[in-house]
Amino acid sequence: MKNIQVIFKSRPVGLPSEDNFEIAQSEMPKGDVLRRTIYLSLDPYMRGRMSTVKSYAEPAKLGEPMVGSTISEVLESNNPKYRRGDFVLGLDGWQAFAASDGKGLRKLDPSFAPITTSIGVLGMPGLTAYVALLDIGRPKEGETVVVSAAAGAVGSIAGQIAKIKGCRAVGIAGSDEKCKHVVAELGFDACINYKTQELNEALKTACPDGVDVYFDNVGGAVLEAVLRRINLYARIPLVGLIAHYNDPKPRPGPNLLPLISKRALIQGMLVFDHTDRTPDFLRDMSQWIGDGKVRYREDIVEGLENAPRAFIGLLQGENIGKRMIRVSADPTRKER
Amino acid sequence: MKNIQVIFKSRPVGLPSEDNFEIAQSEMPKGDVLRRTIYLSLDPYMRGRMSTVKSYAEPAKLGEPMVGSTISEVLESNNPKYRRGDFVLGLDGWQAFAASDGKGLRKLDPSFAPITTSIGVLGMPGLTAYVALLDIGRPKEGETVVVSAAAGAVGSIAGQIAKIKGCRAVGIAGSDEKCKHVVAELGFDACINYKTQELNEALKTACPDGVDVYFDNVGGAVLEAVLRRINLYARIPLVGLIAHYNDPKPRPGPNLLPLISKRALIQGMLVFDHTDRTPDFLRDMSQWIGDGKVRYREDIVEGLENAPRAFIGLLQGENIGKRMIRVSADPTRKER
Repeated sequence: MKNIQVIFKSRPVGLPSEDNFEIAQSEMPKGDVLRRTIYLSLDPYMRGRMSTVKSYAEPAKLGEPMVGSTISEVLESNNPKYRRGDFVLGLDGWQAFAASDGKGLRKLDPSFAPITTSIGVLGMPGLTAYVALLDIGRPKEGETVVVSAAAGAVGSIAGQIAKIKGCRAVGIAGSDEKCKHVVAELGFDACINYKTQELNEALKTACPDGVDVYFDNVGGAVLEAVLRRINLYARIPLVGLIAHYNDPKPRPGPNLLPLISKRALIQGMLVFDHTDRTPDFLRDMSQWIGDGKVRYREDIVEGLENAPRAFIGLLQGENIGKRMIRVSADPTRKER
Repeated sequence: MKNIQVIFKSRPVGLPSEDNFEIAQSEMPKGDVLRRTIYLSLDPYMRGRMSTVKSYAEPAKLGEPMVGSTISEVLESNNPKYRRGDFVLGLDGWQAFAASDGKGLRKLDPSFAPITTSIGVLGMPGLTAYVALLDIGRPKEGETVVVSAAAGAVGSIAGQIAKIKGCRAVGIAGSDEKCKHVVAELGFDACINYKTQELNEALKTACPDGVDVYFDNVGGAVLEAVLRRINLYARIPLVGLIAHYNDPKPRPGPNLLPLISKRALIQGMLVFDHTDRTPDFLRDMSQWIGDGKVRYREDIVEGLENAPRAFIGLLQGENIGKRMIRVSADPTRKER
């Protein structure tokens, strides 16, 4: 048996292309805990790892498998903490098999929740939405919360939490299909298609009382437009700047004058700083999912060889919900 | 006797010119408390009032005296709270005399501090520096605090408070003379002349450990450059954006990517929200001045007729310290 890896071959300038990756066979890995990757998580932050700029993490290394979170099944284990057949969350990257001493793995309980939720609504994207909205956004009942990338893994959850907190939730997304999903399935009050609607007018209509919290995943022109509509003491958790991730050079940001006149706040956040909120998050989010107050959609692309294309598509916003790669069969999932 | 007023004649596009103002004679004002203006405060916020954009205050009205804080002597009073010879802080605007029922005036005690400090180090600019630095910037001992417009009324105080709190204080100003003042007289550790030095290099040299707090009065290219040097969890009180005040249309701001990777915060502030901090401020600042830990310079321009030119010069950064107009003789001041 051979391992299959997606090797990070060259650093992109602008939007990554499939040429930046290479599919390669290699020997099976060796280590105390051998596992088979079932799902590979695809997330926008990976674009940052492809550049040489050191930000909060080291850049991904050329010639090695791309980095990423994985859900795997343990095949063999000499570590007493893990047994054959266990499901684990890890950071095995873009490959079919991985092995290690088992450090850093987290066991998943398929009877608690579908294992895919560990990289989605009950994982990093869900915690991001929870912490950024509640701790930085601090929404109060009756306020208006605007969420960009509202059909994405993080934005879709943030808007639903805003609804739970008694706010008006307004999404911004890039297609009518996404907007329909956001309003009809997720229960947002309104959704703006920024590709077809005039943003300033649409925001005025969708937010007649202005914007109190802007949960920003994108930056760019959307942030600029929302800043024109913010209310006094608005809070803007800056969770992502996907509109900027492919800029070869840093592009100017929004004019900040509204921050002064409205005494508003923009705060950058990274979920890794907030793992202390995990118990609260898991308690609340499980409850909300159980009560039908939070819904989530998964966007599963089949086959590791399709990871580069699916990742590039993610950066272009073609997904609805949490995008992941099914690398191999998921024994916990019934046929649909 | 006649009143002299500087009338706001036309709204500027870009930098104001003297043509936007008109010196006019008018009848003496009538009211319970008649006063003679001694000092008129000139402040960058006045540029905002000259535009039609409603921000935190109504735009100044054309055909009326320009708005502004004043220090005056009471000439006649039918209000028992004020007597002839009292000195008062008011909002009488750009004129030689004013009268009203006395509402909104605050009595000044010349034996407590020079009356000019009520519009400077012990007034709005001082409170701005105090609240923005301490409450938003939250400097910790050993951290590096960068202050733009460091020779101005607000920045000069902010940097000195940073020193009192045990920080490294680095100023940014627009001339070698200002930088010399900032370091030699005010005790900053370093000062960068942004007009002659390459900002990125100069910041690297002046802030070898990065920037923890950036007290920003200006925005523009300086903010962009400082953002490249911020440390983890940096705090940026956004106090002014003077580089943008004369933009006919909003100009782009800084790229915000560093906010995410550094989990940093930018927060707009207006001093009017923080008057509850006045007692703490007056206690601390009087103490610091008394102990020689805070020094201040006043930049007094003679004659109401020179207010337009002096105000335009303020927007261009020609002042060192707090700029004000001496409208009439100050009986509390000994000849120098």
